[in-house]
This record gives sequence, structure tokens and C-alpha cells, in this order.
Amino acid sequence: MITVIKLGGNIIDDEIQLNDFLHQLANLSGKKILVHGGGKSATALSEKLGINSEMINGRRVTNAETLKLITMVYAGWINKSVVAKLQSMQCNAIGLSGADGNLVKSQKRSPSPIDYGFVGDPIENEINADLLLNLLANGFVPVIAPVTHDGNGQLLNTNADTMASVIAAAISKKEKVQLLYCFEKNGVLKNVEDNQSFFTELKKEQTDELSAKGNIHSGMLPKLKAGFSARKNGVSRVAIGNAMALEKLASENSQCTLLEL
Amino acid sequence: MITVIKLGGNIIDDEIQLNDFLHQLANLSGKKILVHGGGKSATALSEKLGINSEMINGRRVTNAETLKLITMVYAGWINKSVVAKLQSMQCNAIGLSGADGNLVKSQKRSPSPIDYGFVGDPIENEINADLLLNLLANGFVPVIAPVTHDGNGQLLNTNADTMASVIAAAISKKEKVQLLYCFEKNGVLKNVEDNQSFFTELKKEQTDELSAKGNIHSGMLPKLKAGFSARKNGVSRVAIGNAMALEKLASENSQCTLLEL
Repeated sequence: MITVIKLGGNIIDDEIQLNDFLHQLANLSGKKILVHGGGKSATALSEKLGINSEMINGRRVTNAETLKLITMVYAGWINKSVVAKLQSMQCNAIGLSGADGNLVKSQKRSPSPIDYGFVGDPIENEINADLLLNLLANGFVPVIAPVTHDGNGQLLNTNADTMASVIAAAISKKEKVQLLYCFEKNGVLKNVEDNQSFFTELKKEQTDELSAKGNIHSGMLPKLKAGFSARKNGVSRVAIGNAMALEKLASENSQCTLLEL
Repeated sequence: MITVIKLGGNIIDDEIQLNDFLHQLANLSGKKILVHGGGKSATALSEKLGINSEMINGRRVTNAETLKLITMVYAGWINKSVVAKLQSMQCNAIGLSGADGNLVKSQKRSPSPIDYGFVGDPIENEINADLLLNLLANGFVPVIAPVTHDGNGQLLNTNADTMASVIAAAISKKEKVQLLYCFEKNGVLKNVEDNQSFFTELKKEQTDELSAKGNIHSGMLPKLKAGFSARKNGVSRVAIGNAMALEKLASENSQCTLLEL
């Protein structure tokens, strides 16, 4: 079983929690792949540099300057810092973006009706699973930043939850895979203020109903969409839960939210 | 024969020349590895951010903020931009820093007599040549940024000429290697104002004499030191010359400066 782990931004921003998580990752048995998000450091740097990110419907537009910044922060600083930390824990990490080895090719999102700029959506059958399987077979732990390319030389900003989902799905064609979405909460919560109120299981249909009623936090919806897509595309187990209890999240079904079709 | 190519900063800063060079690299036959320098974009960004880099004896001190900046620019933006461009030229590039896969472990330079901060000198027998040979055997072209790690979680700023030298030397233990230092000049010049005045061959002893007399530009000395070290450590051919004539530099001895022991 290969474990694909997506780590959310809030943990990345907290050095103590990040170190704790990485120790748990280094000690997790079996083949594993880490996909990391961005955290707030890109926003902070963007403000320092006076880069104006236009917002449309509450979503940030990735203009050329923002793309450069994201590539620097995600694929540069965060990726290499995480790799160096894992190396110090005897975990042979190797950092990659979606451009490296043509790992994830994506398509620039259509500018109509809304132009989000240099944002790319991964193309499902354009994931280089063989590269990851080769690295895993040689004892490496791939650490992947959410930046992709279009194959024509253009880098693109890509959602990390989606990256993790398409990567897990692609390697599930060759080996058994589980996908873990790790963040600061215990799972998908019924009541956002109660960390114990997590669903232990969510079915796709049930999720659609809850979402229609507004009973699931809107920020959670893209993650659920990505998770169900992975399940649909061959991933054996998709769990959402606490990054600080990685071993449990990887092996126990009662302490997280499992997605079922 | 494996060709290790170090590309200098002035070419990286010029988008037209960089694209031209990368096309030539993509078309160069045989196994190849690119090590790139930094260029001036880190300095420009540093000024924008108001990061004060202390200078000692004309050399920049790498403080924590500068290290972060260098990692962002070199291992992030430059590395991934170059990889995406090469991918668009049907060249299966994969970007790496020295931390990735424990490729280049280095030792933080002693703070005495002068503390240059987070600067690392590669440890000769701590280069992961097998990782590069595995990638080359699988058709990848490694693209390496001059950032290393100390094995204890610390990233370090490392001279790109030295990176190229130790990498070439390490793989020369297993396969025949040539090392090409590419930049905007035709070779090591006798007269810095005349690009045709290049030495076609330089011996170590002769170089020491010329250097003592001040007849070699001081900026060239670290490159020559790195080049002779590579020759001494098993690299078959070390050539210094024009990035815009890569194919010639890789195969003809008369249009560049060759280093001989």
C-alpha cells in the first residue's frame, strides 16, 4: 500500500507542528508521498513586495507576479525546507514540482467566464506515475509542491488537494493506494467549533445533501470533491483528519472522516 | 560520456539568450546534467524586500533572510522555469537542489576568521552520484540549483561552480565525464576586453603563475580552481567557453579554454 499524504497550509505555517508532523511522516511505515500546500507565507511576502492580487468572488487571481511568488515560496522555500528537515530525520526525501520529470501536466483554466490567470487544472491521464513508482522503489519519499506546467513552458498554480487526488489516482492504476488529507482538525466537522463532532464516514450522496443545506463549511467542499474523485478513480481509502495523529489516520478508521462512494 | 554543464548567471538573466542556450542543451546528444547559477534576480528581489546583505571583503554574507531568498529564487523560480522550458523542448528535465535525495551534502563554512553565514562547502564523498546515474539511465536531464544541506536540516548557499565540479567528479568514478563551464565569453581571456583572446589550453601551474602576476581576472579564479579540482578528481575534460555555442564547446577543442593538469 502506498500512502499519499496531503498536508494543509496551517500546519506548514507553524514550525513546531510542522516538525512534529514531519517526524511522524519519517516514521510512518511503507511507501509514502507528501503533497504540501502553501500556507500564508506567500501572502505575507506578496504584501511585503506590494504585489496586488486581484480577488474575484473571494478567489485570488494568479497574475504573472503572483505565479513567480508562488513558485518561489512553494517549490523553493517550503519544498526545500521540508526536504532538508526530512533528510535530517533519515527520511530520503526528494522535492518535485509538477514540471519536474513532467510529473503533472495541467491545462490553464479557461479565462471565461472568470479569468483566474495562471491557474492550471491537472490533466488526469498526464500524470507521470512511473517516475513516482521508480523513486519509491529506490527508497525515496517524493515531496511535491502544488505548481504544475502546461507542457509549453508555462508554470501554473495548482490546487494542492487536487494534485494529491490526481497523483493518488494515477498510481492506483499500478499499486494499492490510500490518500490522507491532513490538517489541524480531526475530520470533516458537523459543528466547526467542536473538533470532536467529526463525521466518521461521509458518502458522496450524503455530502451533496449536506452541502446543499449549507451544513458543510464551504472551504471543505473542494477537498471533498478531490477526495471523492480519488475514490472514484481507484484509490482504496481516502481519510480526512488530524495531521498530529498521522499514524492513526493512516491505519484506524474511527478517528477521522472516511470518504465512501 | 556524461556531460555536466554549468550555466553562468549572466545568461540566466537574459531571457532570449537563456532560451537559445536551453534549445541547444535540449538538442545536445548524450546524457547531460545542468547546474545553474543564480543571476542577479536574487539581488534585485533582496533590494525590493529591503534585506541588508552585509559585505565582507567584497563578498556577500548569507544571513537567514538571504538564505531564504536564495532558496526561493534559485531552487524555486529559476530552477522550475528552466525545467518547464526544457520540458516544452521535449527534454525531460527534473529539478533538484543538493538537499533533494541527499544529492550534495555540505559543511557550513567555519565562522572563523570570517563568518559568511549560511554558506556550505560540498563534502567530496557525500555526493549521491547513484541518484543522478539512475535519473540519467531513465532518460531524465537533472537540473541542479546551487543550494545544499548539512544533513541536520539546514539549507546552505553553495557556489554553483563548485557544485558542478564535485558532481562531475563524483559521477566520474562510475562513468566518463566532461565538465563544461558556459558563460558569455569564449573562454578564459588574456585581455578581458577582447573575446577572441582566449587561452585554448591552461595548465594548473601556468594558471598559478598568471594569477600571481594578476594576469587572470579575479572573478575567474574560483571557476579555475573548481575546474582543476574536477580534472584532478577524475573528470576527463574540462572546458570553459561560450554558452551560445554549446555543441562546439562539448566537442571541439579549439574554440574554448581547456584545463589540463
